[in-house]
Amino acid sequence: MSAPTNAANPTAAILLIGNEILSGKVEEENARFLTRELRALGVALRRIEVVPDVTDDIADSVRALAGRFDFVFTSGGVGPTHDDVTLHAVAAAFGMEVRRHPDLEALLRAGYGDRLHERDLRMADIPAGARLEYGPAGPRGDARAPWPVIVVRNVWILPGVPSIFRRKFEAVRELFRAGPIHGRALYSREGEGQIAGALDEAVAAFPDVEIGSYPHPEARDYRVKITLDGRDAAHVDGALAWLAARLGDAVVRTE
Amino acid sequence: MSAPTNAANPTAAILLIGNEILSGKVEEENARFLTRELRALGVALRRIEVVPDVTDDIADSVRALAGRFDFVFTSGGVGPTHDDVTLHAVAAAFGMEVRRHPDLEALLRAGYGDRLHERDLRMADIPAGARLEYGPAGPRGDARAPWPVIVVRNVWILPGVPSIFRRKFEAVRELFRAGPIHGRALYSREGEGQIAGALDEAVAAFPDVEIGSYPHPEARDYRVKITLDGRDAAHVDGALAWLAARLGDAVVRTE
Repeated sequence: MSAPTNAANPTAAILLIGNEILSGKVEEENARFLTRELRALGVALRRIEVVPDVTDDIADSVRALAGRFDFVFTSGGVGPTHDDVTLHAVAAAFGMEVRRHPDLEALLRAGYGDRLHERDLRMADIPAGARLEYGPAGPRGDARAPWPVIVVRNVWILPGVPSIFRRKFEAVRELFRAGPIHGRALYSREGEGQIAGALDEAVAAFPDVEIGSYPHPEARDYRVKITLDGRDAAHVDGALAWLAARLGDAVVRTE
Repeated sequence: MSAPTNAANPTAAILLIGNEILSGKVEEENARFLTRELRALGVALRRIEVVPDVTDDIADSVRALAGRFDFVFTSGGVGPTHDDVTLHAVAAAFGMEVRRHPDLEALLRAGYGDRLHERDLRMADIPAGARLEYGPAGPRGDARAPWPVIVVRNVWILPGVPSIFRRKFEAVRELFRAGPIHGRALYSREGEGQIAGALDEAVAAFPDVEIGSYPHPEARDYRVKITLDGRDAAHVDGALAWLAARLGDAVVRTE
C-alpha cells in the first residue's frame, strides 16, 4: 500500500485518455465519478486533462502530473487494440520497459477461458516498474473481478469502460482516505461587485479557507453563491460567521 | 475576424478554470456543450484541461495550448471577485499589460446602470493586446446581450456561467465553421482481441480515417463499437465497407 494516508492534504490529478471524449461521442462519466469520490475521501483534485490516444501526449501529461501531485488516475487506453497505448505511454514517461506480467497473464487466461485471443494478452504487457494493487481486501486468489489495479509509482491506471472503472476504483478507494474537507455556503442577494471587497477581507483573514464566488443569474432569490472549504471545520465555520456578519442584509441564507 | 475558415483541419483546446469543477460542486456543462458544437462545426478538439483559479497555472496552460492548437477557448474566472484571475493570467501568458478597455467600460456602465459597483469595472480590465469580437452580426450599438467576446491572439475568453457561455459562443460560432467531419460506426459481436488484427490493417490502409474501438460489456447484441471518422466522406465510407467485409459474420450492424 503506497497511499500516504497520513498526508495532511493529499492532491490528485485525473488524466482521461480517449478520442471518443474529445469528439463528443460519449458522455464523460469517469472524471465525474472520481471527482465526487475524491472529494468524499478528502483528496484535493487539482487538475483534469483530456488527451487523445497518442503515446507522446499521454507520456508528457503523465510525467508532468506525476511530478506535481500525490496521485494521478488515468482512464482509458488499456485494451488490446491499436488505440490502446496508455501502458506504453506510462512506461515511456518513466523510461521503463514494457514486459508481460505473469500474474496478469494468468488472470486473463483464467478469466477469458476459451474466448481468449492471443492478442488479448497484450493487456498483460505493463511497465517493468509497475505493481499490482488489490486494495485492502487483497487478492481473491481466483479470476473473479475485481482484478488488480496497475500502479506505476504514483500513477493509478484504470480502464475507460465506466462500469469497470468504478469497480476497480472501489476496490482500492480506502487506500486514499484522508481527513474530510468541510464545505459551507452563503447565498447573497447582492451582486459580485457589491460583495467583492468583503470577500477580499475574508480571503485575507482566513488563509486556510478556500473561498469561491459564483454568480447564478437564473436563481430566483439570490445572485451569488459563496462557497467556503477547508480542512479545519472550526475555521470554515468561523469564516462563514465572519462573512455573514460582514455582509449583513445581503445574506439570503447559509448552509 | 481571425478564424482561419480556409484551414483544412482546424484544431482546438478547451481550458476550464474553476475550483468549483475540481471540487465537484457543479456539474461541468460548458465543455460538454462546446465539444458538441466544435464537432458540428468540423473543428477537431484535441485537448481539455481543468485548472484551479491560480494565475500561474492558467497562464502556463494558456501559453502551451495557444502555441499548439488553432483555437483555445477558456471558461470561467472573468468576474470581479478575488477568484477571477483569468484575464490577468492570459495577459501574463503573453507578456501583456492589463488595461481598462473604454468600450467594455461603457457597456458595463450602460448595462448595469444604477446597480454598477466600482468593482464591477474590473471586468473591463483586459490584456492590452486583446480585441473584442462581436461575431458576424457585428456590434449592436447598444448594451443588449450578447456582449463581445474578448479575444487575445487565438485565445477566446468565455465566462463560466453556462447560460452566458452559450450565448456568447453562439454569437461567434459561425467564425469557426470548417468542413464537416464524417462519422460512421460498426458493431462487432466479437471481442477486441479477435478483431484487433483487422483493425490494425484498416488503420494502415486508411491513414486519413480515425478508427476507434470501444468495448461495451453492458450491450446486449454486440461487444465492441468501432467508430470511423474523417474529413473525406468517401474514405470513411470506404474504410467502413472494407472493415465490414473483413470482419464478416462478426458484424452485427453498421451505421
